[in-house]
Amino acid sequence: MKIPEKLKYDEHGLMPAIIQDYRTKEVLMVAYMNEEALKRTLETKKTYFWSRSRQKYWLKGESSGHIQTVKGVYFDCDNDTVLITVSQKGGACHEGYRSCFFKKLNDKGEFIIAGKKVFDPKKVY
Amino acid sequence: MKIPEKLKYDEHGLMPAIIQDYRTKEVLMVAYMNEEALKRTLETKKTYFWSRSRQKYWLKGESSGHIQTVKGVYFDCDNDTVLITVSQKGGACHEGYRSCFFKKLNDKGEFIIAGKKVFDPKKVY
Repeated sequence: MKIPEKLKYDEHGLMPAIIQDYRTKEVLMVAYMNEEALKRTLETKKTYFWSRSRQKYWLKGESSGHIQTVKGVYFDCDNDTVLITVSQKGGACHEGYRSCFFKKLNDKGEFIIAGKKVFDPKKVY
Repeated sequence: MKIPEKLKYDEHGLMPAIIQDYRTKEVLMVAYMNEEALKRTLETKKTYFWSRSRQKYWLKGESSGHIQTVKGVYFDCDNDTVLITVSQKGGACHEGYRSCFFKKLNDKGEFIIAGKKVFDPKKVY
């Protein structure tokens, strides 16, 4: 897979990548890719991101083993966001949940846990 | 619905909002919210965004009629991204597709149309 032309990155050279389970269609996480991370992702079929906090590339699952295998790659109308459908091994969230979006807002403005815990972070990291 | 504390916005005071169809789980679009847009969204149950290009608030569907009614609001582990499940009237994309992510990348690095066209933009805008 090659990188298409005309992609638009932000002022930091990044675009958000939405990661979605290809079977359940659950949104698993959002992280950021620059051109090199996107290239590595397309070449290896494993998701690579650029960590804004650590300022380095990371292969998702490199420490946890919870690798994401790429199934489909989609771009939006503006070419500034990528949606990647994956087969997720284990859980996407470092807190042990299947999805990072495990906090649902209730009517009082409080978070309630709506996600499924699939591993114990203490045993994995 | 109140806004929870501890939300993290970027240097422009924005966070990405992932909009997902609450029934089909299709990812419809990604846009940006600041605190006021999030507040309006929670109060009215219609999605409001901050337009980075036009530097103004927009009610999704204000010109097209393709309103999004909020069904669920989720935050990720880092509190810097919101996922909103909606009932989408018409299509989310201004190009006439149900989802903005209608371009699938093939092995040659080309876009192929993978989305469903649900309205004629010329007749709507």
